[in-house]
Amino acid sequence: MIVTDGSPVSIVATDADDQPTRTPELEALYRGFESELLVPLWTEIGDLMPPSPRSKALPHLWRWQALLPMAERAGELVPVGRGGERRAIALANPGLGGRPFATPTLWAAIQYLNPGEDAPVHRHTQNAFRFVVEGEGVWTVVDGDPVAMRRGDFLPQAGWHWHGHHNVTDRPMAWIDGLDIPFQHFAESTFFEFGPDEVETREAPERSRSERLWGHPGLRPLTHLRPTPATPLLAYRWEHTDRALTEQLALEAEGHGATVEPGHAAVRYTNPTTGDDVMPTLRAEFHRLAPGTETAAAREVGSSVFQVFDGTGRVTVGERSWSVERGDLFVVPSWQPLTLTTENGLDLFRFSDTPIFERLYQHRAQNDRQENPR
Amino acid sequence: MIVTDGSPVSIVATDADDQPTRTPELEALYRGFESELLVPLWTEIGDLMPPSPRSKALPHLWRWQALLPMAERAGELVPVGRGGERRAIALANPGLGGRPFATPTLWAAIQYLNPGEDAPVHRHTQNAFRFVVEGEGVWTVVDGDPVAMRRGDFLPQAGWHWHGHHNVTDRPMAWIDGLDIPFQHFAESTFFEFGPDEVETREAPERSRSERLWGHPGLRPLTHLRPTPATPLLAYRWEHTDRALTEQLALEAEGHGATVEPGHAAVRYTNPTTGDDVMPTLRAEFHRLAPGTETAAAREVGSSVFQVFDGTGRVTVGERSWSVERGDLFVVPSWQPLTLTTENGLDLFRFSDTPIFERLYQHRAQNDRQENPR
Amino acid sequence: MIVTDGSPVSIVATDADDQPTRTPELEALYRGFESELLVPLWTEIGDLMPPSPRSKALPHLWRWQALLPMAERAGELVPVGRGGERRAIALANPGLGGRPFATPTLWAAIQYLNPGEDAPVHRHTQNAFRFVVEGEGVWTVVDGDPVAMRRGDFLPQAGWHWHGHHNVTDRPMAWIDGLDIPFQHFAESTFFEFGPDEVETREAPERSRSERLWGHPGLRPLTHLRPTPATPLLAYRWEHTDRALTEQLALEAEGHGATVEPGHAAVRYTNPTTGDDVMPTLRAEFHRLAPGTETAAAREVGSSVFQVFDGTGRVTVGERSWSVERGDLFVVPSWQPLTLTTENGLDLFRFSDTPIFERLYQHRAQNDRQENPR
Amino acid sequence: MIVTDGSPVSIVATDADDQPTRTPELEALYRGFESELLVPLWTEIGDLMPPSPRSKALPHLWRWQALLPMAERAGELVPVGRGGERRAIALANPGLGGRPFATPTLWAAIQYLNPGEDAPVHRHTQNAFRFVVEGEGVWTVVDGDPVAMRRGDFLPQAGWHWHGHHNVTDRPMAWIDGLDIPFQHFAESTFFEFGPDEVETREAPERSRSERLWGHPGLRPLTHLRPTPATPLLAYRWEHTDRALTEQLALEAEGHGATVEPGHAAVRYTNPTTGDDVMPTLRAEFHRLAPGTETAAAREVGSSVFQVFDGTGRVTVGERSWSVERGDLFVVPSWQPLTLTTENGLDLFRFSDTPIFERLYQHRAQNDRQENPR
Repeated sequence: MIVTDGSPVSIVATDADDQPTRTPELEALYRGFESELLVPLWTEIGDLMPPSPRSKALPHLWRWQALLPMAERAGELVPVGRGGERRAIALANPGLGGRPFATPTLWAAIQYLNPGEDAPVHRHTQNAFRFVVEGEGVWTVVDGDPVAMRRGDFLPQAGWHWHGHHNVTDRPMAWIDGLDIPFQHFAESTFFEFGPDEVETREAPERSRSERLWGHPGLRPLTHLRPTPATPLLAYRWEHTDRALTEQLALEAEGHGATVEPGHAAVRYTNPTTGDDVMPTLRAEFHRLAPGTETAAAREVGSSVFQVFDGTGRVTVGERSWSVERGDLFVVPSWQPLTLTTENGLDLFRFSDTPIFERLYQHRAQNDRQENPR
Repeated sequence: MIVTDGSPVSIVATDADDQPTRTPELEALYRGFESELLVPLWTEIGDLMPPSPRSKALPHLWRWQALLPMAERAGELVPVGRGGERRAIALANPGLGGRPFATPTLWAAIQYLNPGEDAPVHRHTQNAFRFVVEGEGVWTVVDGDPVAMRRGDFLPQAGWHWHGHHNVTDRPMAWIDGLDIPFQHFAESTFFEFGPDEVETREAPERSRSERLWGHPGLRPLTHLRPTPATPLLAYRWEHTDRALTEQLALEAEGHGATVEPGHAAVRYTNPTTGDDVMPTLRAEFHRLAPGTETAAAREVGSSVFQVFDGTGRVTVGERSWSVERGDLFVVPSWQPLTLTTENGLDLFRFSDTPIFERLYQHRAQNDRQENPR
Repeated sequence: MIVTDGSPVSIVATDADDQPTRTPELEALYRGFESELLVPLWTEIGDLMPPSPRSKALPHLWRWQALLPMAERAGELVPVGRGGERRAIALANPGLGGRPFATPTLWAAIQYLNPGEDAPVHRHTQNAFRFVVEGEGVWTVVDGDPVAMRRGDFLPQAGWHWHGHHNVTDRPMAWIDGLDIPFQHFAESTFFEFGPDEVETREAPERSRSERLWGHPGLRPLTHLRPTPATPLLAYRWEHTDRALTEQLALEAEGHGATVEPGHAAVRYTNPTTGDDVMPTLRAEFHRLAPGTETAAAREVGSSVFQVFDGTGRVTVGERSWSVERGDLFVVPSWQPLTLTTENGLDLFRFSDTPIFERLYQHRAQNDRQENPR
Repeated sequence: MIVTDGSPVSIVATDADDQPTRTPELEALYRGFESELLVPLWTEIGDLMPPSPRSKALPHLWRWQALLPMAERAGELVPVGRGGERRAIALANPGLGGRPFATPTLWAAIQYLNPGEDAPVHRHTQNAFRFVVEGEGVWTVVDGDPVAMRRGDFLPQAGWHWHGHHNVTDRPMAWIDGLDIPFQHFAESTFFEFGPDEVETREAPERSRSERLWGHPGLRPLTHLRPTPATPLLAYRWEHTDRALTEQLALEAEGHGATVEPGHAAVRYTNPTTGDDVMPTLRAEFHRLAPGTETAAAREVGSSVFQVFDGTGRVTVGERSWSVERGDLFVVPSWQPLTLTTENGLDLFRFSDTPIFERLYQHRAQNDRQENPR
C-alpha cells in the first residue's frame, strides 16, 4: 500500500463540552495533525478508554436448524481441497463489520465433510479445536496420528501441528471448529504452511496414539516429561466428560461441594503437562445444568462462544434473550452478563479467549453469587 | 446497535482459481450465508491465513522537528483537564485507517505540559510508560508518589494505578507516552476511572519513594516479597542506563562477550520482582550502536516503536529507509526486517508488544547473524 | 541438652600428606578450636566434599517372604492405636546406623491392619503414600473421604491432611508406606497433630469422592482451579496404570516411540493441577520390563526404593546383585548405577526423593543409553 | 562397608505406656526385626514425629574476639593449598556431634588468607558465599572474573562455578564463608572438581565484570535473557545495602510503610534474573535496627546464622540470651523464637536455608507482631 493522496487521518473539531473551543486556529492545528499523521487523545478518549469494556461484538444466536442445512448445501456446491482448504462456514458477528469473526478474538465455524472426502493437510500458528455435537465417521489426522471424532468429543489442535481430516464412512459429517483466527489476525502473528493434499494415513482406529499415551488420569509417560504449551492429548472423549459431570451432580446431592453453584456442574479441559488450559489462547469447558437450575448472572473480561449440546433452556446475554436447543450457538461479548436457566436440563460446550487475559493480567470477573469471584 | 436492514455480511463469488465455480446456485447459497450471518472460510483464507505475518501497519517515520512544534501549538490552543485528560498527540500509522495507533497493538504519543499545569489524576487498565528525550520539570505522581522526569529516564506506569502529572517549572515540557491502548481496545479489556482534578502532592523530590525502596541493584525490601505482574520501580534513570551501555561496550573492547553483536550494546528494562519485562504487555529496551556499526537484519513477530535518543544513523525497515536524528520516532511492523547503521554512534529507545506473544507462545524471531536466535 | 563437660568437638592431627605438619603448636591450636567449638575444613574436606556422591546408605534387598511373616506376627503381638499410631515396620538401611531409614531421605515400611481394626486419625507435615502389592479390604480415610486400597493401587497422602485407616473385612491386609520422614527429620520441619481415635466414616465406597472429582483424564472441576502443591487425586488405580504400560509396549511394537528404552515402559504418577510430581518431595513411578529386557545402567543424584510388583528378574545396584520376585524391596543409593534384567517380564513400583533435587537445581543423571539424559 | 557380624539395628522393648506389653514373644519379634534390618514405627515415633520441630542444633554464640585470633594463629601454622584447599575454620554447633555444621543444613566458617597467598581454584555443587565484616585486599576469582572483597560486601558463589581467592595486599584478610555443605552432605548430592593451583588472573579491578554487566538496578543485558537458578551478580556492595537500609528508615520516619516493623529495616539479596533468592538453597539478608528497637519474637521452619556487622545489642534465641558486638556469630535453630533488641543501633547480616523449605512447601513462620505472617 502506498499513501499517494491526502492523509488517511481525519480529525473533526466539535462543540462538545469536553472539547477545546472550535476556532480557526484549532482547525488549522488539526489539519497540521492530519498532514503529519497525528491524532489527539482528547478527541478519541471516550471511545478508547470507556469506564468498562464496551464490546463491538453483539450478543447473537445462530440456530443449528439454519446452520446445518447451509452446510449441507455447501457440501453439494463447494468442493473441498487445496487453496480453500476446508469447507468451513464461520459465524459472523453482526457487530464486527461482516468479518468471519464470532467475537473480536474467536472464530467459530461449522465444518462439513462428505463421504470419502479429505480436507488437505496444513499447519498454522492458530490454535484450533473441533467439537462434535452430532454424528461421527471423520478421523482428524494430527502429525500422522488418526483421531476419531464422535458426538461429545472435544479435539484440541494446537498451533503449528500438521493436520488434515478424512471421512471414512458413507455419510457426511458436520462439526464445529473453534480457533483464535481473529486474535492472531489482529495481532499479526500468523504463519501458515501447506502439507500433502491427502491425509498421511487412512487408518481409523478406535483410539489415537495420543490417547493411548496420555489418556490415563494422572499418569505421565516417562518419555514426555517436559511441560508443553498446549495439551498433547488429542481427544477428550464424551464418556469421560459425561461421567465427570454426572459425578459432580451426584456429589452435590450427597452433600459435598462439587458444583460451581447449585445444580451447575462444570469441567475445564486441561493440558496434562501443566494442569492449565488446553491451549495458550483458548479455554474450553463443558457445563451441565440440572433440571430447574438458574445460574447467577456472571460477566468477565473476554468473550465466549457456547454451543448447546443437549436439552433446552433459556439464555440471557446482556439485553438479548433466547430459547435454545441442541446445536444452537451463541456469543457472549466481553463484560456482558450471562444467565442460563433450564426446566429440563441443559448441556453446554463453551470456549473462550480467557487465557489471553489471565496470562496478561487483564482478566476480571464479576458474579452475582459471590463477592470475590474465584 | 441494532441490525435493522439487510445483513452486515457481504460475500462475493469470484472466478478465481481456488474458488468454487460461480453458479446461480452458489450465488443463492452465498445470499443464504449472508442472511444467516455466515461467512465461508474459502473466500477469506488468503487474507486470514497468510504464509507469514502481513502487517496492516506500514513502516513509518515521524520527525521530532515536525512533532514538537505541533505539541507546542497544542500547548497554546488546547487546555489540559478533566474529560480530555491529557494533551497527548498520537502517532497514527498510515496503514491503520486513521486510528491513533502506531501499530495494531501500540500507542505512542507526544505529551506536552505547560508551566504550572496539572494533567488530572485517573487510572486505567492500560499499561503505560513515559520516556523523556529532552527537558525536565514535570513530576508524575503515581499512587501519591511524585516521580521526577528528566532526559533519558524511563518511567513505567503499570495498569490500574492512579496517576497525574504536574509541571513545577516555568518552562513547558514534552515527552513521549507509550501504552497498549490499541491492544486493549481491540481485546476489549479496558477499564477507566477518574481521580482528583489535581495531583495529590506538589512535592518535587529528587528521587521517588519507589526508587528509594527498589532502586538498589539486587536488593529487595523485606516488606515486599511477592512477585508483582508489573515493576514496582517507577523510574529507570538515565545515569544507570548510560552506565550499563558504556560498560557493555567497554567489556567488548576488553574481549568479553557483553554485546548483542559487534558494536551493539543493549539493555532491557525489567521488573525486579521477577526479572521479566517491566509490564505484562510491554517490553522496553535501550540500544546503543558504537560509531561505525551496522546491525544484522532482524525481524520478529509483533511490532515495535523506536525513538532516537541521540546521535544519527540510517534505519531500514522492510522497503523503507530513513536518516534519523534526535527525537525521531519510527515503527517496525510485525515480521518486517530492521537494519540500523551509524557512522557517529546512535542511541535508541525501543518499546514493543513482544511479551504478549511470548506469554502466548506465538513469538518467533529471525536474525541474519545467527541461525537460532536467542 | 546442656553441654556441661568438655567439648563435643574432637580434632585429630595426622601425618597425612595433605595435612599441616603435626607440631605441638598445631596440637595446641586444635585444642583451642575444640574449646571454641570450631572445626577446620582441611581435616574434613575429604569426607564433606568427595568428587561425586558417596552414599552412606548401602544397596540392600528386603525379601517379601521374610517381611510379611514379621508383619503378621506383629499383628498378633502389637496392638494398633493412639501413641504408636500405626503397626508399621520400617526398612533400616544397614549403612544408616540402625535408624528406620531406607535411605537418607526416604522411609519405607510394611503396614499391617487386622480385621476390624482402625489406625487412628492424625496429620503430619510428612508427605506419604501407600502402595498395595497384594490384598485389599482397607479403606484409608483422608479428610473424611474413604479411599479403597487394592492390589496395584497407588494412594498418595500429601502432608498435613487428616488420615486414618480401617479394615472392613474379616482378613488382615498389608501394604507398604513411603514417606519423607528421614528428610524432614533431618531438615527439622516436622509438625504432627492427633485427630480422633477412629476414622470419621466407615463407609466403604468403590470409588472415593476424590476420584469422582479428579479421576477423569484432562478434566478439571471448575470448583478447583488453583494449582496445589500436591495432588488432589487420592487414588491412582491399577487398571489405569496397567493399561498405560500395556499401551506403551503396544505402541513400541507398532513402531512408535513410547518407551524409555526398548522393552521398558514407564509412567510417572503426577499432580493433575500442575503436571508435576504427586508431592513436593516424593516422586512415584511404575516400570514394566517386557520379557527379555535388559536396561542400560543408569544413575542419578538422590535415592530410590523399588518394590517388585510382579514377575521375576535380576537387579544390580553398584556392586550388589539379587534375583527378585513379587514383593521384594530394594534400595538404590545416590549415584549408584542400577541395571534391571528379566527373562519373563518384571513389573516394578518405584519411589524416590528426586523432586527435592530438581527443585533445588542439584539433580544430575547419567545413563549409558544416551549422552544427554532426559 | 560390609555388615559382617550382627545387625546394625537394635530395638529395645520398654514398659512405657504407649508401648506394647513387654513379653518374651515381643522380644523375639524384635530380635527378628533386627536380623531382617527392620525397625518398628511405634518405638520411634516420638523422636521422628514431634508436634513441632525439635532441633538437634542448639542456640549458640561464637565471639569474633575469640574466633579471629584462632584464624590468625592458623595463618601462622597451617599452609593453604591443594588438598586442604582453604584455610577455613567452621562453627561446630554443640548439638551436632562435633561435626563442622553450624546448623543441620548450614556451614559457617571464618576464612583467612595471608599476604600474597592463593586459595587454589576448584568447583563444587555446594552453593556458597562470602561476607566481609572487616578488612579488604582479597579478590575472589569466579570463572576468571576477579571480584574485590571489602567490608560489608556480600559475594555469592553459586554451585559448580570455578573459584579461587588471592590476597594482593601485604596484610592478611579474614571473612566468613557460608555454604550448604551439611545439607548436601546429608542429601548426598555433592560433586567436587579441582582446578588450577593458582587463580587465573591477578588483576585486581575495582569492579568485577559481573557487576559491570548486572549491577544496574532493573536493567538486564540483552545477551542474558534466560532465568538462571542462581544470581549472575557476583558482588552486592555495601554502599548499596547501606543506602537501601538508610532509605527504609527515612521513609518510615516520613510516615511511609517501608520497614518490617517499627525501627527494623531489612533487605534480601536477590537474583536479578528471577527476583528470587540469590541461590536455590540459601537466603541472605541484611537487617538494621534503629536505636531503641525491640523486635517481636519470631520463629520459622529452618535455621539461620547471623553475624553482627556493627553496633551492639541483645539477642535471645529460645532460652539463650547474649549481648553481642561486631563480628559475633550466632545460630537460630529451626522453630526457635528469636528476639533482637538494641539501645544504640544494630546491623546484622543473616543467612538461612529457607529457600529449601519454601520450594518444598514445608515452610512455616510465626510472628508475635502479626497473625498471618508474610
